[in-house]
Amino acid sequence: MKLASLKGGRDGKLAVVAKDLTHCASAAAVAPTLQCALDNWFSVEAALRELAADLEAGHGPAFHPTACAAPLPRAYQWVDGSAYLNHVELVRRARGGKMPESFRSDPLMYQGGADSLVGPRAPVVVASEAWGIDFEAEVAVITGDVPMGVAVEDAASYVRLITIVNDVSLRNLIPGELAKGFGFLQSKPPSAFAPVAVTPDELGGKWRNAKVHLPLCSYLNNRLFGRPNAGVDMQFDFGQLIAHAARSRPLVAGSIIGSGTVSNKLKGGPGKPIADGGVGYSCIAEMRTIETIKSGAPKTPFLKFGDRVRMEMLDEDGESIFGAIDQEIRQYEGLS
Amino acid sequence: MKLASLKGGRDGKLAVVAKDLTHCASAAAVAPTLQCALDNWFSVEAALRELAADLEAGHGPAFHPTACAAPLPRAYQWVDGSAYLNHVELVRRARGGKMPESFRSDPLMYQGGADSLVGPRAPVVVASEAWGIDFEAEVAVITGDVPMGVAVEDAASYVRLITIVNDVSLRNLIPGELAKGFGFLQSKPPSAFAPVAVTPDELGGKWRNAKVHLPLCSYLNNRLFGRPNAGVDMQFDFGQLIAHAARSRPLVAGSIIGSGTVSNKLKGGPGKPIADGGVGYSCIAEMRTIETIKSGAPKTPFLKFGDRVRMEMLDEDGESIFGAIDQEIRQYEGLS
Repeated sequence: MKLASLKGGRDGKLAVVAKDLTHCASAAAVAPTLQCALDNWFSVEAALRELAADLEAGHGPAFHPTACAAPLPRAYQWVDGSAYLNHVELVRRARGGKMPESFRSDPLMYQGGADSLVGPRAPVVVASEAWGIDFEAEVAVITGDVPMGVAVEDAASYVRLITIVNDVSLRNLIPGELAKGFGFLQSKPPSAFAPVAVTPDELGGKWRNAKVHLPLCSYLNNRLFGRPNAGVDMQFDFGQLIAHAARSRPLVAGSIIGSGTVSNKLKGGPGKPIADGGVGYSCIAEMRTIETIKSGAPKTPFLKFGDRVRMEMLDEDGESIFGAIDQEIRQYEGLS
Repeated sequence: MKLASLKGGRDGKLAVVAKDLTHCASAAAVAPTLQCALDNWFSVEAALRELAADLEAGHGPAFHPTACAAPLPRAYQWVDGSAYLNHVELVRRARGGKMPESFRSDPLMYQGGADSLVGPRAPVVVASEAWGIDFEAEVAVITGDVPMGVAVEDAASYVRLITIVNDVSLRNLIPGELAKGFGFLQSKPPSAFAPVAVTPDELGGKWRNAKVHLPLCSYLNNRLFGRPNAGVDMQFDFGQLIAHAARSRPLVAGSIIGSGTVSNKLKGGPGKPIADGGVGYSCIAEMRTIETIKSGAPKTPFLKFGDRVRMEMLDEDGESIFGAIDQEIRQYEGLS
């Protein structure tokens, strides 16, 4: 089943979407919003699946990703893991640091701002290019109610939906914030989400071991920037990430758990750029680190106003699973 | 106007509460939940104030703090500043560190978990005493929709409500988490809130310069532990804290901004214990640091199962403004 939140109101309007993303139907009769559906999952899931089945058989209004808000336009929780240690190693190296060995067994995770999450075609609005605007392509799951202290082996059963995220990062604000010791705040502006979130069964065998075993493609100004496989080099699966987040507290339905920037460490060294026949990167920061290692300085600039970032995950037949995130970087005009 | 969320459903049921906290009335006819009221503040405020005025003139069902959830039982945002630098200095010293000078001009703030906030009489449920359970008494404001980049001088105008918080902290998990560099996650279990949140006018002249100028009293097992004045030694007022949180993103209505642990630095040295005629502390960690400075080792243990923590702020006539937070520390029994 594929679900979207069409723009409208603070929480969007829940719609079921055809598998091929061509058309959709309102789910208002079952649940007005995705949050409401997640709050009452076991009593609404069957009816939503029925709507979805009808949609495959018949027709409905055309589905436009531009009409989509984020699946949860305001969420009660967004925590983001760093499950791909290759990304962590590279980004730390760029900041002149080293990844502690403990990161291999103890997931790195931060509490992010969940109150304003933006849709797939919303611009990335930032006050200054000097803040070092970067994208980060990630997989995320949306959970049901997770009890405190859930066991790792049970945690993945709380995954209700899967989607992809652009976890926008302001690289030049990060060192100062992290030096203060309390994590990210200003350096993580609103994240953007794909048009559609899907139940795990939609991925068939590509969802296994609580990981998504497909490449996640990122494009910068319409050129492929990276296509690392989200099932490869993921040190902590979503079960481990959920259990980590729930160690000392419950997580309410609609909690969004991110994988961290998808990154593959190829044999014989870190992921090569696409141009060199490698899988490339899911953020600019990794590319810049590789450039620095190779030639002493980064060459690829961070994002500039007018740039476009696109992210998409295709199934084995080349069909888009979640629809694309496709955002322009835009200067904040200030309060009007 | 005083507002509470009576237990019921995931978001509670909005009630207006008499100034003396003796009785209340359902606000369902105006807004079913506090979040809904905050979402539509300018269209519901007058009707809520009318209900509140009727309540002062007449009667209503008795108001029981035990019937209260947190004002926002699940919120879209909880960010917590560290505006009282005396607390920051002491706690850093206890961890063997020193407060950077920049903390005097750049607020320290973390993104906290907002998805499950507990009511004033809910137990603090923790798996192990060995995690170092501590309370932190704080003031918090609840905002309307705050635009990105709001100016400091405009930011306080977005304060809709004021309340007090027990920002429970697991001291022995903090050093490990902060060493990872991504802030708090497991070391900050659900925070607890007072029964009632009030509009700024309820505080009269005690709300000025975007600070609450009254002592915040904390009790450990019914003995006064601290009564520092929340208007004293607050390096950053709530306008500055809101502007800091909104520097690179908007904040949605219902965002909760904490002051950090209220702490007064008395002349001639850090705040003395109540027993020595001082104002005492709003958390155990500060007391332990003072003990360590004086005698080489902390004496006061962190909280044990069965302990009770109480927090309350009284007006000049000795009347409770927000009602009391009064929580038992209880062992988590695990998944049942």
